[in-house]
Amino acid sequence: MFFHKKEPIHTVNVDEANPHFAQLLLEQFGGATGELSAALQYWVQSFHVENPGIKDMLQDIAIEEFGHLEMVGKMIEAHTKGVDQTEVYKSTLFALRGMGPHFLDSQGKAWTASYLNEGGDVVRDLRANIAAEAGARQTYEELIKLATDEGSKKTLVHLLTREISHTQMFMKALDSLGKLTDPMFGNIPPDDTVNIYYNLSTHGNEGVARLDERGPWNSAPRHCARTYPIGF
Amino acid sequence: MFFHKKEPIHTVNVDEANPHFAQLLLEQFGGATGELSAALQYWVQSFHVENPGIKDMLQDIAIEEFGHLEMVGKMIEAHTKGVDQTEVYKSTLFALRGMGPHFLDSQGKAWTASYLNEGGDVVRDLRANIAAEAGARQTYEELIKLATDEGSKKTLVHLLTREISHTQMFMKALDSLGKLTDPMFGNIPPDDTVNIYYNLSTHGNEGVARLDERGPWNSAPRHCARTYPIGF
Amino acid sequence: MFFHKKEPIHTVNVDEANPHFAQLLLEQFGGATGELSAALQYWVQSFHVENPGIKDMLQDIAIEEFGHLEMVGKMIEAHTKGVDQTEVYKSTLFALRGMGPHFLDSQGKAWTASYLNEGGDVVRDLRANIAAEAGARQTYEELIKLATDEGSKKTLVHLLTREISHTQMFMKALDSLGKLTDPMFGNIPPDDTVNIYYNLSTHGNEGVARLDERGPWNSAPRHCARTYPIGF
Amino acid sequence: MFFHKKEPIHTVNVDEANPHFAQLLLEQFGGATGELSAALQYWVQSFHVENPGIKDMLQDIAIEEFGHLEMVGKMIEAHTKGVDQTEVYKSTLFALRGMGPHFLDSQGKAWTASYLNEGGDVVRDLRANIAAEAGARQTYEELIKLATDEGSKKTLVHLLTREISHTQMFMKALDSLGKLTDPMFGNIPPDDTVNIYYNLSTHGNEGVARLDERGPWNSAPRHCARTYPIGF
Amino acid sequence: MFFHKKEPIHTVNVDEANPHFAQLLLEQFGGATGELSAALQYWVQSFHVENPGIKDMLQDIAIEEFGHLEMVGKMIEAHTKGVDQTEVYKSTLFALRGMGPHFLDSQGKAWTASYLNEGGDVVRDLRANIAAEAGARQTYEELIKLATDEGSKKTLVHLLTREISHTQMFMKALDSLGKLTDPMFGNIPPDDTVNIYYNLSTHGNEGVARLDERGPWNSAPRHCARTYPIGF
Amino acid sequence: MFFHKKEPIHTVNVDEANPHFAQLLLEQFGGATGELSAALQYWVQSFHVENPGIKDMLQDIAIEEFGHLEMVGKMIEAHTKGVDQTEVYKSTLFALRGMGPHFLDSQGKAWTASYLNEGGDVVRDLRANIAAEAGARQTYEELIKLATDEGSKKTLVHLLTREISHTQMFMKALDSLGKLTDPMFGNIPPDDTVNIYYNLSTHGNEGVARLDERGPWNSAPRHCARTYPIGF
Repeated sequence: MFFHKKEPIHTVNVDEANPHFAQLLLEQFGGATGELSAALQYWVQSFHVENPGIKDMLQDIAIEEFGHLEMVGKMIEAHTKGVDQTEVYKSTLFALRGMGPHFLDSQGKAWTASYLNEGGDVVRDLRANIAAEAGARQTYEELIKLATDEGSKKTLVHLLTREISHTQMFMKALDSLGKLTDPMFGNIPPDDTVNIYYNLSTHGNEGVARLDERGPWNSAPRHCARTYPIGF
Repeated sequence: MFFHKKEPIHTVNVDEANPHFAQLLLEQFGGATGELSAALQYWVQSFHVENPGIKDMLQDIAIEEFGHLEMVGKMIEAHTKGVDQTEVYKSTLFALRGMGPHFLDSQGKAWTASYLNEGGDVVRDLRANIAAEAGARQTYEELIKLATDEGSKKTLVHLLTREISHTQMFMKALDSLGKLTDPMFGNIPPDDTVNIYYNLSTHGNEGVARLDERGPWNSAPRHCARTYPIGF
Repeated sequence: MFFHKKEPIHTVNVDEANPHFAQLLLEQFGGATGELSAALQYWVQSFHVENPGIKDMLQDIAIEEFGHLEMVGKMIEAHTKGVDQTEVYKSTLFALRGMGPHFLDSQGKAWTASYLNEGGDVVRDLRANIAAEAGARQTYEELIKLATDEGSKKTLVHLLTREISHTQMFMKALDSLGKLTDPMFGNIPPDDTVNIYYNLSTHGNEGVARLDERGPWNSAPRHCARTYPIGF
Repeated sequence: MFFHKKEPIHTVNVDEANPHFAQLLLEQFGGATGELSAALQYWVQSFHVENPGIKDMLQDIAIEEFGHLEMVGKMIEAHTKGVDQTEVYKSTLFALRGMGPHFLDSQGKAWTASYLNEGGDVVRDLRANIAAEAGARQTYEELIKLATDEGSKKTLVHLLTREISHTQMFMKALDSLGKLTDPMFGNIPPDDTVNIYYNLSTHGNEGVARLDERGPWNSAPRHCARTYPIGF
Repeated sequence: MFFHKKEPIHTVNVDEANPHFAQLLLEQFGGATGELSAALQYWVQSFHVENPGIKDMLQDIAIEEFGHLEMVGKMIEAHTKGVDQTEVYKSTLFALRGMGPHFLDSQGKAWTASYLNEGGDVVRDLRANIAAEAGARQTYEELIKLATDEGSKKTLVHLLTREISHTQMFMKALDSLGKLTDPMFGNIPPDDTVNIYYNLSTHGNEGVARLDERGPWNSAPRHCARTYPIGF
Repeated sequence: MFFHKKEPIHTVNVDEANPHFAQLLLEQFGGATGELSAALQYWVQSFHVENPGIKDMLQDIAIEEFGHLEMVGKMIEAHTKGVDQTEVYKSTLFALRGMGPHFLDSQGKAWTASYLNEGGDVVRDLRANIAAEAGARQTYEELIKLATDEGSKKTLVHLLTREISHTQMFMKALDSLGKLTDPMFGNIPPDDTVNIYYNLSTHGNEGVARLDERGPWNSAPRHCARTYPIGF
C-alpha cells in the first residue's frame, strides 16, 4: 500500500526559472536514466526476489526513488511555471504540451518499460541496478554542469548523492551473495571456452598474431590471451 | 572496417527442428537481452571510451557478440527451415513473417535501441555491460531449461559460457580502474546524506521506528540505519 | 514524499494458480488500460493543476492506483509462483522473463507513456481521466469473465468497483467546474460552423441529401443537420 | 469505401510561411492529440459498435477528421514549400526529412496506435472520444497562441471549433445512453467499497485524521469521506 | 476532402468465423505490411510530390488502400463477431481488447509510423512504394495459405491482386521518369568508387583472392569484381 | 563469424567540428534511413534467401554497410570530441548523452527494427533493399547540402556513391530473376481486377466521369482506365 505526503523528501530550490533547463531535466523524469526507471525497476523486482532482506531493501529504495521523481517534477514545475510568455519558453516542448513535468525525455521521447532490466534472478537484478544507478549518476553530473542556478545545482547534487548511496547498498547486497566480484551465477556450469580471449578487432598492419592491447582482462592466468587460429 | 567469414564462430548443432523453440530463441536475436543489444552497446561505447586497452576490449567483445548473433540466427534458421507445413510452425510468427531469424523478441516486439545503456563515462559503460551480460546469461539459462534437443542445449551452453567470460573481462577492466567495489565515480562529490538509509517501506504493525530487515546494506558503519523522523 | 506499507490496500486472494491467466492480468499491470497508466496520469497532472481541491483529489486517487498496481502485481505473483515446471507455465512469457509481474501488457508489449493523456488544462485532464477509467473498467470486466478462480474474480470486482468510484469523483470535479455536460472550455471562442453536422459517410443508394441515421447528436436545434452541398 | 475530392473540406490560408511553426503543426498531424488519432479511433470503433445511429455518427465524424488531417497537412506544406534555403528551415526536421507533412509529432516522434483508446463497449468508446477531443482542443489553443500569421490562426480556430462540435455530438450520444453523468456502465455490479474516499496523500503536520481539501467528490452523501485507519 | 460509402469497395465474404485467423488478419490491418501503412504512405507523399500526374495517382491508390483497410476490418469483424464464448476466441487478443479490428499486428504490436518510407524525392517515394507493395503481397500470400474458409481466401486473392496492380502503376510511373532500371537519381554525382564490388564475406578456406559467387551484380563490365587489397 | 580492423573502410575527414551537424549525422547512424538499418536488413535476409549468389551478395553488402556505420560513427565522434564547453555543443543531445555516436536519429528517437522490410521471398527482399537505398541516398543528399566543411562533404559523397552502387547490384540481382520490371512474383495468380485503375480522388467540378490526370499508369492497354460506376 502506498502513501504520500505533500512535502518532498528533500528540499527543492530553484533560484531562477529556466524553461530550457527544465526540458533537460525531463531526462531524469521521463528518460531512460531517470527516476521513474529506477523506481519501477527496483519495485517490480521486489515481487520475485525471495531473499527477505534484499526484498525489503529494494522496496525501501524504490519508494525513495518515487520521492526523487517527485523532486525532479517539482524542479520542472518551478522552471516552467509563470514563464509561458517568454521566447525561451516558446522554444521548449512545454509551449505545446503545457507547463510542468511529462513522462518524456529531454528529446520528447515517451518513457518506455524497454528501459528496464529485471527478472528471474536476484544477482541479475542487483547488477542491473548498479548499472541503472551509474546511468542516473552520469546524467545528473551532466545536468549539474549545465544548470544555470545554484539552487538547482544543490538539489541535483543531492539526487546524485543518493545514486551513490544506492549503488553502495546494491554492492553490499551483491557482496553478501558473494557475487560482487565473481562473474558466475545461476545453475548452468560453463563449458571449457570460459577462459579464452578472442582477438577479433585488430590493427591491419599488425596481424592477428598478437594482441593489440593488454590489460588484466586478457593477460591474467584465468583469461589466457589466445589469438584466433591463423589462416583467416 | 568489418569482415565476415561464412563459418560461424562456434559450432551450431540442432538435432531436431522445433519452430516453437525457434520463437523463444528470438529473445536472444532481437530481444532486450539478446546478442544484438550486446554487440551494439559495446561497439558504440568504443567510440567515446578514451582508454586504449578498454576500447580495444570493447571492440573485441562486440565483434564476438556479432558472431554470437549469427549463431543464434543459424539456430533459428535450422529450427524453422523446411517445417512450414506443420501445425506447430503455423502457430508461430514465422508462418506470416517467413522462416529464419527476424529482429523481434519472443513476443514479436521489434528490437529497439532503448535497450542500450551507454555514454559519457567508461565506469558507467562497464557497469552497464556487466548488467547486460547478467540479463543475457539469465535468458540463456531459461532457454537451456526449455530446449527440446541436445544440440541446441550444447550450443546455448557455449553462448551462456561466453557471457560469463565477458563478465569476467568487464569486471577486470572495472577493477583496473578501482571501480569494481567502490560505488563512487565521476567528478561531483556527494553531499552529507550519502550514508543514510531511508526506511520507507514498512510493516504496518511495526511502525517506522525500527528496520524491517537488516543486512550489510543498512547496518554497516558507513550506512548507519536511520529511521525517518517520527510524526508522519 | 512516498511511503509504503507491505500490506496491500485490499485483500488479494488467488485460489488456484493459473499462469495463462497471469499473462492476461499483465494487461492491468503494464498495459494501456492498466493501473500504472492511471497512477502516473493522475499524479503527473497534479503538478500543473492549480485548483487545490482537484490537485489533492488527483494525488489521493493516484496513490490509491499505485496500491492497485501492487494488488495486480501480487495476483500475477500468486498465479506464477511455484508453477514453473508446468506446460501451461512454459507457454507463457513468464518462462523466459521470470515469474511475477513485468511492465508488459498481455501481448508482451512494454508499457509506454504514449498511453497518457494530460496537460495544459484541468478540464482536459479530468475528461482524460474519465476515459482512462472507462478503459480500465472495460478490461476488468473482460478479465472477470475470463478468470478461472473465485478469489481472483472477487479481487478483480473490487478493482473494477474503484474505477467506478474514481469516475464518480472525476465527474463531480468536472461538474464543479461546470464542464460535465458543456462541450466548451478554454479561452478561444469557436467560429460559426460549431453547429453543423457533416453527413460524410452515406449509403450509396440514398445519396447525401438526407441523413442516414438520426439521433440527438444531429437533430437537436443546436446541431441542425446539414447535408453537404450537392454536386460532389 | 472511401472517396476523395482534391478541394479541402474548409479553407486553408497561410499568409506567410514559417517552417518553425510548421514543425509545431506536426503535433496535430502525427502527434498524440492530432487528427490521425481522432480519425482512426472513431473509425475503428465503428466496426464493433452495434447501435446503428452511433455507428453512423462515428463514421461521419471520422471522415471529417480525415478531412481535417488533410487541412493540417496543407498548412504544413504551405509553411515549408519553397523556403528550403533559409536558416529557419534548416533548423527544422524538414531539412533532412523533406518539405510537407510527415506522421511525426512536433518532437519528431513517429505516430503510434498506442495513442488510441477503444474497444469492447460503446460507453467506453464515447468517453474516450470526449477525452480525445479535449486533448485536440487543448493543442489547437496552444497552436493558436503560437501562430505567427492571421491566416493560420483562422484556420486553426475552425479546427478547434469542430473539436467542440464533436464533443457536443459525443456528449449527446452518451446522454442518449444515460451515461453522460452516471459513472457506471457494463454488466458487473460494484462491491460495497464504491462510496469510499481514501485520503492517501496528506499534509504532514495535519495527520490523516481529516481531509486535506473538500469538494463534491469527497463530501457528498454518496462519497462519504473516510480517513484511513489510524496507526500507520 | 474525404467521403465514405458504407458499402465496401469489393465483396467481403467470410464463410466461417475463425477468431484465430482474425488475429493473423490483423497483420494487414495494423501491421507493418498492412493497408494502413500503404494508405498513409502514398497519401502523405502526395503533399510533397510536384508532378501532377504522379500526385493524382498517389491519391487514387491511397484512397483505394483505405477501402482495402476497411475490407480487412470487415473480415476481422466477421471472424470475431458472435463467437466470444468459444475457447478459440478466448485464446486470441480479442477476448481482452474486444471484437473487431484494432490497429495492432498479429503479435499485438501497435501500428507505428516508423513503418513508412517517404520524403524529399519522388523517385525515392516510388521505390519505397514498390517495396511496400511487395511486403503486402508477401503477407497476403501467407494469409491465403493459412486461411480456413474459401470466402476469406477469395477476398484475400483480390487484395493480393490489387497490390500487383499498384506495383505495375508505380513501375510505370518510375519508368516514365527513367528510373525503373537506372540506379541513380538526385543531384549529387557519385565518386569514382561507384563500380567497385567489395568481397567482404568469404569462405575461410578460399581466401579473399576470388569471389565466392558470381552473378550479374559482380561480373558485368560496370561492376568489375574487385577483391579487397590483400594483406588484411 | 565477424572480424574487425581498426582502420575504416574509407577515409573519414572532418575539417572542423560542428556538434549541430553531428546531431544531423545521427540520422544515418541510428535513423530510419541509416547504415544500421541497411546492414541489419540485408544481413538478416541472408539467413532465409536460398539463392547462393544473392545470399553471398547480401552478406558482402551488409558487411560493407557495417563499415559505413563505423564511418558515420567516426564522423560524429570527430564532430563532438573536445568541443563540450561550447554553447553549440550544449544545445545538442550530446551534452546530456555524451560525445560520440548513439543509436538515435537526428530527433533523438531510438533506432527500432520496425524500420526493416524483409522476409519470406527474395523478390520482396530485393525490392525492399532498393527502397532502403533510395531512402539512404536521399538523406545523404540533404546532409551534403547541410554540411559545413569540405571533408565531411567528401566523405558523405562516398557514402552516397555506395548507395548507388548497391542499388545497381540489387537491380541486377532482381533482373536476373526477371523481376525488375515485372510486377508479379510468388505463387498466387491474381484475379481479373488486375488491370483496373480506380479514379477515387477527383476534382469536384469535373466529376468522376473522366480521369484527372493521365500517365502510362492509367492509359496503357494493360491498365485500361476505368472510372468508378456512376451514381455514387
